[in-house]
Amino acid sequence: MELAAIGKVESSLVDPASAPKQGSEGAPDSWVVIEPQMADALDGLAVGDEIFVLTWLHQSDRNVLRVHPRDNPRNPQRGVFSTRSPDRPNPIGLHRVEILAIDGLRLQVRNLEAVNETPVVDIKPVIPTDNAG
Amino acid sequence: MELAAIGKVESSLVDPASAPKQGSEGAPDSWVVIEPQMADALDGLAVGDEIFVLTWLHQSDRNVLRVHPRDNPRNPQRGVFSTRSPDRPNPIGLHRVEILAIDGLRLQVRNLEAVNETPVVDIKPVIPTDNAG
Repeated sequence: MELAAIGKVESSLVDPASAPKQGSEGAPDSWVVIEPQMADALDGLAVGDEIFVLTWLHQSDRNVLRVHPRDNPRNPQRGVFSTRSPDRPNPIGLHRVEILAIDGLRLQVRNLEAVNETPVVDIKPVIPTDNAG
Repeated sequence: MELAAIGKVESSLVDPASAPKQGSEGAPDSWVVIEPQMADALDGLAVGDEIFVLTWLHQSDRNVLRVHPRDNPRNPQRGVFSTRSPDRPNPIGLHRVEILAIDGLRLQVRNLEAVNETPVVDIKPVIPTDNAG
């Protein structure tokens, strides 16, 4: 089960410690830059679309099974599968964002809380099943 | 970027062709069975929680960049990143489900459209940012 990067994040965020915990908490507008050989896979995406960007959180600790949520020692430890901690066995990031602009292989998106150069592994449209049931 | 299975799906669905396109379209109740060494990571999950189950769609074709949505030749082809096709460069499945029961390392879930023995690679809680903005 080997992932290949389909692109990467371009962002003014460079340090995980300075990144907001969630994109809605003040992430800067960022770009998702797609590999040229993946161009055909972008067809059908449009400005205004809500998408999930899946990333590989390459600075994560994969051996962590329990964390203090939001890195706050006052929060009791819990299992990583009940949190969105980047530290987890398979550090896949799941980011719901809106497409602000499309420029060839570059997608500008709102609220992506990933640092510069984070590998992107998939893009999926948001569908009704993803929303609160 | 190598993924390790944290568990697998137990389902009466065995053939991808018989699986519904989306979980809300008639998937049977299924179980997510977690590896014993991941037990600590489950702490904090509860019956009634909405979670994302991330799977590895092991029967997918990773060379496909364009598809007819929903396998219907009448639908014009589009890029896989604008569809939820299992055929895509990194065949990660994203399934929003509800936990119906927890029995040790086994989570019973509603609306999981993955076939029996599908590897599970991550579990994440649904957070407000995931819902329609």
